[in-house]
Amino acid sequence: MAAPAAKLTPTQNSLLLHNRNHLVKPTSTNLPIATATTKPRPISISIKCAATATSPTPTAQPQDLEERVFNFAAGPATLPAHVIKKAQAELYNWGGSGMSVMEMSHRGKEFLSIIQKAEADLRALLNIPENYEVLFLQGGATTQFAAIPLNLVEPEDTVDYLVTGSWGDKAFKEAQKYSKPKVVWSGKAEKYTKIPSFDGLEQSPDAKYLHICGNETIHGVEFKDYPVARNGILVADMSSNFCSKPVDVSKFGLIYAGAQKNVGPSGVTIVIVRKDLVGNAQGITPVMLDYKIHAENKSLYNTPPCFGIYMCGLVFDDLLAQGGLEEVEKKNKKKADLLYNAIDASGGFYRCPVEKSVRSLMNVPFTLEKSDLEAEFIKEAAKEKMVQLKGHRSVGGMRASIYNAMPLAGVEKLVAFMKDFQAKHA
Amino acid sequence: MAAPAAKLTPTQNSLLLHNRNHLVKPTSTNLPIATATTKPRPISISIKCAATATSPTPTAQPQDLEERVFNFAAGPATLPAHVIKKAQAELYNWGGSGMSVMEMSHRGKEFLSIIQKAEADLRALLNIPENYEVLFLQGGATTQFAAIPLNLVEPEDTVDYLVTGSWGDKAFKEAQKYSKPKVVWSGKAEKYTKIPSFDGLEQSPDAKYLHICGNETIHGVEFKDYPVARNGILVADMSSNFCSKPVDVSKFGLIYAGAQKNVGPSGVTIVIVRKDLVGNAQGITPVMLDYKIHAENKSLYNTPPCFGIYMCGLVFDDLLAQGGLEEVEKKNKKKADLLYNAIDASGGFYRCPVEKSVRSLMNVPFTLEKSDLEAEFIKEAAKEKMVQLKGHRSVGGMRASIYNAMPLAGVEKLVAFMKDFQAKHA
Repeated sequence: MAAPAAKLTPTQNSLLLHNRNHLVKPTSTNLPIATATTKPRPISISIKCAATATSPTPTAQPQDLEERVFNFAAGPATLPAHVIKKAQAELYNWGGSGMSVMEMSHRGKEFLSIIQKAEADLRALLNIPENYEVLFLQGGATTQFAAIPLNLVEPEDTVDYLVTGSWGDKAFKEAQKYSKPKVVWSGKAEKYTKIPSFDGLEQSPDAKYLHICGNETIHGVEFKDYPVARNGILVADMSSNFCSKPVDVSKFGLIYAGAQKNVGPSGVTIVIVRKDLVGNAQGITPVMLDYKIHAENKSLYNTPPCFGIYMCGLVFDDLLAQGGLEEVEKKNKKKADLLYNAIDASGGFYRCPVEKSVRSLMNVPFTLEKSDLEAEFIKEAAKEKMVQLKGHRSVGGMRASIYNAMPLAGVEKLVAFMKDFQAKHA
Repeated sequence: MAAPAAKLTPTQNSLLLHNRNHLVKPTSTNLPIATATTKPRPISISIKCAATATSPTPTAQPQDLEERVFNFAAGPATLPAHVIKKAQAELYNWGGSGMSVMEMSHRGKEFLSIIQKAEADLRALLNIPENYEVLFLQGGATTQFAAIPLNLVEPEDTVDYLVTGSWGDKAFKEAQKYSKPKVVWSGKAEKYTKIPSFDGLEQSPDAKYLHICGNETIHGVEFKDYPVARNGILVADMSSNFCSKPVDVSKFGLIYAGAQKNVGPSGVTIVIVRKDLVGNAQGITPVMLDYKIHAENKSLYNTPPCFGIYMCGLVFDDLLAQGGLEEVEKKNKKKADLLYNAIDASGGFYRCPVEKSVRSLMNVPFTLEKSDLEAEFIKEAAKEKMVQLKGHRSVGGMRASIYNAMPLAGVEKLVAFMKDFQAKHA
């Protein structure tokens, strides 16, 4: 089949360069883009066809990238294009097994190799010490809001919650069923735009743990450093900034995260817990919420969310190939700086309410000075293939979630759009 | 690109006929197989290539089918080949949305259309009455073992469990944490090979519900009819025979099922519950186990397992296209009859321990009279691309799980292999 010569748009060129520089491991089957520049120019594309998509090194082709929108959703969220391509290529027949990952027995050698590699890669990424369990569970962070007190404390025990947003507040409320939680600080009165100084934090003398939400997805407030829990057990919900930057796991008793922001599809929840905290669940704990059961069975007590774990594994592999979380953090900072600078340089046309020192690298909430233009902003952006920019229904305004997999080109396009929109409406 | 002429093997021909007759909706892009017969003959195959797999009507091609094994796993289990092909075709760009289903906000219009169609199709398939909620949850049937007593009764309430296998036993044990369960009958002494007569069943006078496991995956024991619960609330775990035959939902207070046998990948649990039973959860119920929360939020209280729900939706759509569950049951009976007849006609070389009247249409356990040949049987079958035939580790022997998506050709091939193996070793 003869392939037509294709012209690349500036966005495609930018994406190709981005892929080449940051995301795609060089292979002999990559596109011949050595001559690509920022100036659009025709290149010849050779398309190899097969009846089934089993290319061993799938990469996103220019036509594919043109199909894609920039998806600023808060989660489930955009995934790396070439990771989805890889999943697509092997969806029907994984590794010559003659079946899809979705069809594999969770106790068969094929899936065991998948979950074991996923765990090993995650341990490498976060440098997780040996004395921590890594569990792949179901039910989202919301299930962990119950599982944490059920596993870590007794009903009469005091536990501390530092509430910097809606998710921390939900975690606190659920803990009331299984412990005596106290709010040691709440940002609610200031509409969750701050994180307090840790020096003045009055932790309960007898608190069994201190709970924080590492990044508040709705409010865009992110811990840049961490408080030290009075008794040494810091528990963190990292759902929306998991694997977006290096974290010293040894500072935590427990870290948990829903996968559907930075590392995979929804339906997988990752718990990293210090081994000495496992094994003392309250008697009323459902067996599926008992960390001991899952630790003893290597996350295979019952059927795990196999396909989701497989997708997380593909993402972990990709993050390692990028050079690990230090490199990932650099890219995330670059993207976030670009967007926050555009907001701050708009002369008040755009506003981000969050205190500068704790602004999230992942979720960027902003409003328009002329709030009656917000609906038009969202509508016009969608026409330009930038979607899911509406803020959470509880706070309004806009929110751009720019997780690991959001290409720099997506943020660049958004910033260019924002300047254009301002020029039209100033 | 010129396509080579391809010869079809007998198995391919059988599969093609099976697809044509039962699974694939006729489309103009289907293979030209009108002349296919049981006699192998060369046919010319025209392969249409595109840079991305976005064919609106993907079907499994002969080459693809040759790649596939017959997967007799108990779950996760084989899915319809053309359903996986459809998922593969739209994995990168669902319905022109510019994103994968895995990347979609669960509150966006695209995913809402997916989950709403999935629920509507399931309601149509099982003719679910209006006064029942349909919930798409996480955590597997094992999470429901706790959720059911937590939602339906108080801690001091008596509940009855009819235990016909390992799963019913696990459900009973978990219920001890949240209620006063009684075993009204257990098949354990007879190694779970029977179901009792309902006439002589001594239900507790004050039991708030009666729990059964509709099909015991490990032991291959299946209810063909259902007992009437003394107080009218029958609860059934249908994980391994869900949507394999028609069920009169109105006879049940609650039906639950993990998806990973007949209707999708692992990570989705479906609960069908009578509305008047929702809203009375015990105070210690984790919010994620409270049916009321999920019913009020249409399964979107937190982020659901979106991709898994999408896959279930594709399967529901396919089951409807097959003519609904009456047609599906006919096929399942034909497959099971073929296999059980082969076992029973082997003169004792193969044996199925289950009482004939309650043999499962889904899971067929059998042993070899010469048990030292079992390892060889499994090994030789695997060489012939029939995998996962080993019985559950708790019972040994062999088990062939022949769910909805196992083609007749797979059972025919297994039966032929069994006869051949017997001839060699008799």
